[in-house]
Order: sequence, then C-alpha cells, then structure tokens
Amino acid sequence: MQKINVAIIGWGNVGRGCKRAISETKDMKLVGVVRRPVSLYKDREELQDTNVVSDISELKDKPDVALLCVPSREVPEKIKEMHALGISTVDSYDEHSEIYKLKQEADISAKVNKCVSVLSAGWDPGTDSVVRALMKMVSITGHTTTTFGGEEGGRSMGHTVAVKAIPGVVDAVSLTLANGRGKHKRKVYVVADKTANTSQLEKAIQKDPYFIDDPTEVIFVKDINKYNTLHHEGEVERTAQEVTQKYHVSGTNPEFTGNVMVSAARGVINSKNRENWGAYTLIELPLVDFLYGATLKDKLEGY
Amino acid sequence: MQKINVAIIGWGNVGRGCKRAISETKDMKLVGVVRRPVSLYKDREELQDTNVVSDISELKDKPDVALLCVPSREVPEKIKEMHALGISTVDSYDEHSEIYKLKQEADISAKVNKCVSVLSAGWDPGTDSVVRALMKMVSITGHTTTTFGGEEGGRSMGHTVAVKAIPGVVDAVSLTLANGRGKHKRKVYVVADKTANTSQLEKAIQKDPYFIDDPTEVIFVKDINKYNTLHHEGEVERTAQEVTQKYHVSGTNPEFTGNVMVSAARGVINSKNRENWGAYTLIELPLVDFLYGATLKDKLEGY
Repeated sequence: MQKINVAIIGWGNVGRGCKRAISETKDMKLVGVVRRPVSLYKDREELQDTNVVSDISELKDKPDVALLCVPSREVPEKIKEMHALGISTVDSYDEHSEIYKLKQEADISAKVNKCVSVLSAGWDPGTDSVVRALMKMVSITGHTTTTFGGEEGGRSMGHTVAVKAIPGVVDAVSLTLANGRGKHKRKVYVVADKTANTSQLEKAIQKDPYFIDDPTEVIFVKDINKYNTLHHEGEVERTAQEVTQKYHVSGTNPEFTGNVMVSAARGVINSKNRENWGAYTLIELPLVDFLYGATLKDKLEGY
Repeated sequence: MQKINVAIIGWGNVGRGCKRAISETKDMKLVGVVRRPVSLYKDREELQDTNVVSDISELKDKPDVALLCVPSREVPEKIKEMHALGISTVDSYDEHSEIYKLKQEADISAKVNKCVSVLSAGWDPGTDSVVRALMKMVSITGHTTTTFGGEEGGRSMGHTVAVKAIPGVVDAVSLTLANGRGKHKRKVYVVADKTANTSQLEKAIQKDPYFIDDPTEVIFVKDINKYNTLHHEGEVERTAQEVTQKYHVSGTNPEFTGNVMVSAARGVINSKNRENWGAYTLIELPLVDFLYGATLKDKLEGY
C-alpha cells in the first residue's frame, strides 16, 4: 500500500492531534509541519523528528493532502491558497452557518485545480453531523438535540482560538457547559494583558459571533493552567414516537479532531482516485472512503 | 419534487414498517404490495387503501424501487429476479458473514441491468454498521462491541423469521438478551404443531446457523401473544485510550427497519440519477443521498 503524504499546516492543539493520529495509522506519512517562523521553538522537542518549514513550498515531498490546522476563520483563504498550488485539503472549519457558503466557494476552486477538499471534518461540525444524518434515517420524524460539555464543561477548541485572537488576551480557555436540552452556556477563563481594560475585554468576548448566542461568563485569572483542560464531551439525541437514539462521546478534543481529520484525508485520496474533484462535507462522501483497509472486503469486515 | 414510486415485496412486520415509513415521507408513493396469494386476507383492513397483487408485473405503475421485505434467506434470489425486470431494490439482508458475497453477486446483475441495490439496510447490519464505521473515524485505535436486547431482551426479526420457517413451528418469537459485553444469549418462545416432537424441534432451532453461536433457550408455549413484543434495543460502544463513544437506540424494530429501508430507497434514486449502477451497503454511498430534501442546501441544514 502506497503511503499518503500528509502535511500539517498550523501548529496548535489540532496540529498536535493530527500528528499523533498520523503516527497511529499505517497508510500515512507526515512530510512536514508548516508553521509561522518563530525564533524560539518552545516546542522544539515534540517536533525534533519532524520536518518543520514556514512555507509549504519548502517541503521536499509534495503533500497529497494538507491538513489545515489553522484557526477556523483563516480556513477559507487557506483552502484557496492550497488549491492554487494543486494541493488537496482537509479542515475542521467550525462556523456552522457558513459551511454551505464555504462549500460552494471551495468546490469551484477545487474543480478548477483538480483538487479535493473535505470540509468541517471535526467533532461538531464533523462526526456529530454524520450522527445527526444517520439519526434522521432511523427516525424520519422526531427532534434532534446536541448538547456539549455536560455539567462540568469541556473545552471548545474553536471558541478558545476565537478568544485568544482578541487583542488584550494573553491566554484563554473556553469551556462549554450544558444548559438544558440542546442549550449551552460558556465559561471563558482569560489571562489578560496587564494594560488591557478587562471590562471592555469581557464585552468584546461576549459580542464575538462565537459567543453572542449563549450566556457567557468571563473570568479573569492569573494562571490558565489550572483551567486548561483538553477534555470535552457531547451528546446527540433524537427522540421520536417509535425510536429513541443517543450518541455520547467523551474524550480529548484535539485527539478526537486529529483522528477525524486524518480519516478524512483518506476520503480525499479516494475521491482523487475517482477524479471526483470538488469540496465535500463528511456526509457527501461514502463513509467507506474514510476507513483504513487495503480492499473493500477488508473495509466491510464487521459491517 | 417528483415522487419516488415504491413497491413493498412481502407482507410481514418489515413490510408493515415500510408502509408506515412511506406514509411519513413526502417524497414517496406506495404503488403496491406484492404478497403471496392468500384466499383469506386476515389483514384486509390494513391493506384496504393499498393495491395488493401477487406478482410485481401486475402493478400498473412500475416501481422505481422495490423494498424486499421477504425473509432474509430469500433476498439474494429476489434481488436477481428484480434486476432481470430492471427494478432496483432495497433489502435488510441480515446474514453478516455473507454480505460481501451478496454484494459481489448483486453488483454484477445490477450493473448488467442498469439497476441500483442498497443491501443490508436495516438495524444491524444497517445503521449500526454506519455507526461502527463512524466510530473508527473518531478513534483510530480501540475496540468496538455491539450489544443487543439489554437484560429484558428484545425481538430479533431475522431470528424470529428463521424459527418460523422450521417445520413443526406454528408461531414463534426470538428474543436477544445481552450476555456480557458484546455477547448474547437467546430466548425462543415457540408454539409447536401438535404432532411435532418438541425435543427434536429444540435441537433443530439450536443448530440453525442463526442460533448455533449463542446459548439458546427454547420455551414451548401455548399462546405466543404474551411474549410477542416488537421492542428491541441495542448499543454500539467503542473504547480507546483517548475517546469513548456510545450509541444507544431503543424502539420498535419493524418501524426502525422500515425507516432505514425507506431512507435507503432515496439512495437508490440518487445513485440511479448519477448512473452509478451497482449494489452497495450503506457505507458505500454518501449519507446525504439518504436524506429527505429538495436541494443539497436543505440537506446540509443542521450539519
């Protein structure tokens, strides 16, 4: 089996999750990590066995797939940039209401440049979206709710990145807590810059599109480590007269997302092999394309 | 939206579940039920609004899809028979170990006759298989178990049909009970023919391929109604170091299966529209193909 050459673009929690996921697969090879040039690599150790560059063109082996581990808001531009270089992509873009628009745009540049992109391949949107589609098959009528974080709360990666991007924020973690069926509240722990006006900062966070729809408590702290969990959990539930379904998942968020993105990279390759150029969400490609296995028979094992 | 013409082949619990599911959709029309000719329709009332024939050729409107609601063991022949008539099919064939073989055979006759078949579109195999594939995306390493019936037990439709086919059995219901993680035992309630040797009957059931791998208790009763539940439940669980996932479903088995088969019928039509002739399990087609909706944008709503 020829290995799939994969590059990781962006080195944060999701990038780390992808690196670990690649190391757990037999069919992929990490050809390099692309990250902003920094003079002092504080993560030198975890990247010592890895080819690190500041521009994808510097990679010796051209990647078959680039895993876009940059903040969600940078994803649309990054996809176009990759397509222009003839490179296919996977992302975990998380702005639910913008996914269809992203799909339309990315689909055009993918088709023009003979690339495949798998979009929003994370937890939610991502595999939770697959679960919601599946649940509709099982009960035609009914009502689906998705709840995150439980009572304790869990780390939302997209929200955490969004807070960190706000000027005056030195470090942050955003927790999602269940707040009644399908509703959420948020707790944001923030280390503020000494010169920042914390009252303005609180408002800026609460008005951010990531937070504006949910009750959001902002708590300023001196040390983020105490609150800096990577754990998350969530539940998708569909109830109908005849059937009830519940999918519960609990785990380390970056590992989860890394696993899904790496599985999606297989979907890219299988689509490329069929010359099925375009940009697709997880439910627009056959699930079998995401599975490890040499033959269809292998992949249908345990069906 | 042009409605999909659907025929139901076979009139048992699954056929009834399909009829109900069709009545809950807006995009399908039941063109008829094909069943063995019986002089006395004891179910005359539930079929009074339906075109009932004993051969599919008698239907005025040719179906776009035939839902095969016959016993699982008759499915492979019935698929070929339909393909020869140029009719696409959906089934809920449940012999796990034979699915790949069925796929290979049905794929040939489908391609020759420009048909599409969706195979094993029930509960398990079926949507549970989709869940197992999904769970592998979420945790690359790990161990998946599937448990049915809980402590109380639930009705297995395939097993019940298999018992009823054994000579000497007048009526029966087969319950599946959880027996430790991923293991099962079975309780079979049987009304035996007066002339039957119950000891031989018990052995015949226990030796049947449907039962041979699980501890099976056969209980002879005079009246099946007391034991004749349609309820079932099941759980798919995947545990790994970093992520645990659990999918639990509970409901009326024929409704569940009917819903899945009817959703799969949409997959048939979407594949036909792409001239993607062949026979496919649920994980070989994009999930979006199974969803109700006029446009892709509608179907991605709530992704």
